[in-house]
Amino acid sequence: MKFKQLCLIAVACWLPLSTYAEAPLNPTAAPARPKNIVIMIGDGMGPSYTTAYRYYKDNPDTEEIEQTVFDRLLVGMASTYPANVSGYVTDSAAAATALSTGFKSYNGAISVDVNKRPLTTMLERAKQRGLSTGVAVTCQVNHATPAAFLSHDESRKNYDAIAATYINTDADVILGGGQKYFTQPMRDEFTAKGYQVLTDFSQLDAVSQPKVLGLFADVQLPWSLDEPEVHRLSQLTSKSLELLSQNQQGFVLLVEGSQIDWGGHANDIAAAMGEMDEFAHSIEVVEQFVRNHPDTLMVITADHSTGGLSIGANGKYEWHPEVLHKMTGSPETMAAQAVANEQWREPLSASLGFAIDDELYSKFEVARMQGKKALTTAIKQEIDLRTNTGWTTPGHTGVDVQVFAAGPGSELFIGSQDNTDIANKIISLMPKAKAAK
Amino acid sequence: MKFKQLCLIAVACWLPLSTYAEAPLNPTAAPARPKNIVIMIGDGMGPSYTTAYRYYKDNPDTEEIEQTVFDRLLVGMASTYPANVSGYVTDSAAAATALSTGFKSYNGAISVDVNKRPLTTMLERAKQRGLSTGVAVTCQVNHATPAAFLSHDESRKNYDAIAATYINTDADVILGGGQKYFTQPMRDEFTAKGYQVLTDFSQLDAVSQPKVLGLFADVQLPWSLDEPEVHRLSQLTSKSLELLSQNQQGFVLLVEGSQIDWGGHANDIAAAMGEMDEFAHSIEVVEQFVRNHPDTLMVITADHSTGGLSIGANGKYEWHPEVLHKMTGSPETMAAQAVANEQWREPLSASLGFAIDDELYSKFEVARMQGKKALTTAIKQEIDLRTNTGWTTPGHTGVDVQVFAAGPGSELFIGSQDNTDIANKIISLMPKAKAAK
Repeated sequence: MKFKQLCLIAVACWLPLSTYAEAPLNPTAAPARPKNIVIMIGDGMGPSYTTAYRYYKDNPDTEEIEQTVFDRLLVGMASTYPANVSGYVTDSAAAATALSTGFKSYNGAISVDVNKRPLTTMLERAKQRGLSTGVAVTCQVNHATPAAFLSHDESRKNYDAIAATYINTDADVILGGGQKYFTQPMRDEFTAKGYQVLTDFSQLDAVSQPKVLGLFADVQLPWSLDEPEVHRLSQLTSKSLELLSQNQQGFVLLVEGSQIDWGGHANDIAAAMGEMDEFAHSIEVVEQFVRNHPDTLMVITADHSTGGLSIGANGKYEWHPEVLHKMTGSPETMAAQAVANEQWREPLSASLGFAIDDELYSKFEVARMQGKKALTTAIKQEIDLRTNTGWTTPGHTGVDVQVFAAGPGSELFIGSQDNTDIANKIISLMPKAKAAK
Repeated sequence: MKFKQLCLIAVACWLPLSTYAEAPLNPTAAPARPKNIVIMIGDGMGPSYTTAYRYYKDNPDTEEIEQTVFDRLLVGMASTYPANVSGYVTDSAAAATALSTGFKSYNGAISVDVNKRPLTTMLERAKQRGLSTGVAVTCQVNHATPAAFLSHDESRKNYDAIAATYINTDADVILGGGQKYFTQPMRDEFTAKGYQVLTDFSQLDAVSQPKVLGLFADVQLPWSLDEPEVHRLSQLTSKSLELLSQNQQGFVLLVEGSQIDWGGHANDIAAAMGEMDEFAHSIEVVEQFVRNHPDTLMVITADHSTGGLSIGANGKYEWHPEVLHKMTGSPETMAAQAVANEQWREPLSASLGFAIDDELYSKFEVARMQGKKALTTAIKQEIDLRTNTGWTTPGHTGVDVQVFAAGPGSELFIGSQDNTDIANKIISLMPKAKAAK
């Protein structure tokens, strides 16, 4: 039998309703296990985000629409609903609990079940098996998603309590924002335990071995759109891979594009696409690592979609991402600058990349008088109008999200699955506990 | 090597970035070719529709969320953008042209290219190869999607001209609505050419051999929600399979759940879910046919998404499909009845399945005075409020759509692809032209 024929026949055993579905499978044969596992979560990154990103990145000077890293890596989709006490629409805490533990819980739960009992997290399992662990995120490191991989709490809102548990996680790499949640005595504890504690992003490059706690902002890192050349999440990802791969037993790393969701909550298409771009860059960093380390599995998904984003709105069959290409910062930053500057019309126009005519000037001026928030909203509304972007909510929606994967075991993620299945598949691919040191 | 190991290794050759990607493939080995191909299009059925349908069908009395036929059959996703002259958001004509011919064209094109030159359709190719062909739809048979499989025209709006070409298609089965586009002389021509021409749905059952032209409504078939027990599309599908499978060479059949899109355009979640349910039933009919005829490939996708539908809206993390379960008809039909009946409050309340309090009564009464359309809108708005459903547009959106498949060749549809790829993969799986009688 030729190799490709083998492929075609064998692939069929993964397909629903296959004519081969009843072929006998050897129950003792296990899939090839990866040594390293990277799970990447685009917070709020529903299907309209990855699609919009393709068109946002499209080179208008070419006939073709260029593929993105998401197109290269798509293998399936996942449902995201929380435990039924919370209905059909999840929050980030319940979704991260599902992705970290393989169990559904209520909205707000940080890796505890519906009875508030702790559930073993993916990173705890990794530690039990002698692997190194890490998280690299753009939100505060004790925000819902990383918290559900590192901690247990009955409420995501207990930021201080969650931060206080991190000293006991034994995690090798904790990178993101959140200085305000880690007091000096807490930082001293980390130092005493052998951690390098960083608060300045420029310190990261010199770090050459774990353990490290890097808190690079008071709360979240800046919008990517405001400093796109810095590639913070890509750098955090790259450094995490470098440090964690020093463990010959392997590692499990969580990378989160945390603020895609924040762009969605703000109904800010510009900020959301900026965060998508940085998350895509970070995926490419991991993709290159997988190329160089074929014993590494990467799995990418979203916890839910945010904002009810639609590509096109108001009856018009149009979407104009080119409007976003001319912007030189986030609407929030532009508004702050305009509020602080009496001569704001020309600078704002330059930042937006389009002329502010008298009618728009009046509208912006009314908003500006009400302050930064109102002007930010007015700017976003104008961008929505010009790009023809739609939103239905400042919250989450229940649409299924995509699953992307590469590396050994990635075939397990083909097709439709639940978010808890993603965790269970990853856990099934980890080395056995007895293999731990 | 054990069978499952073979599976896992071999599956990898379909995965992006696989460590096996550079393994040599035998260029002469072709995938197993199906004898029969069924392509099914859920018009407007983006990812939020299939997800919403899962929760709409969820049995609230069980802890688990039941899987749907879409969950069983998911294999990938597809981009839907039209030729770049039409931007990023497609209409049904350009999308059906892509799915039928493998070429991008402008919005409005019926299987002609951007220069208005005809493109060979999937059903024409099938005929060239000696296969039987058919379409079964719930819209008029000369509407955009079936038209792009049967005809060529520079504009989807040329309904009469498109209908006039159908006599020359040699299609074996043409089932749907559209009596108004087929004059008696046109119908006589079909009869003279050996077609049974039906206009009454009850005639369908007795048909035992092709060819058949069935036009079961003046324009489109009724909303499924108004007569859910009839299962019109399922019956059209079942009869098409019965008739077309009489050709020992095989067949290509298009089935379209046409009015999912119409529910989306109307921002009518109740009608959309009713159409989804009938389309899902029709998929199950084909799924059973594939079980019984393992030489049949079924591929299901959408042409685009419609309405910017979101599961949850307005900042609330909730969706309440149970509201829809109590409804006994479509909002449009309820409104028509209420407009025709002075004593409308109680009957409408009974049809809706919830009480109409004085405030809602006043709102409905104001709308009712303006006529059926206004009352339909008011009813839909109330349903959106109670279900917490969001919409951004009465038109289409650009989000990628899902791809579902089973049967020989279905592995080709795993992962991300363009809608033109779907056509090209199907065409590549058809028997060679030289095999035709």
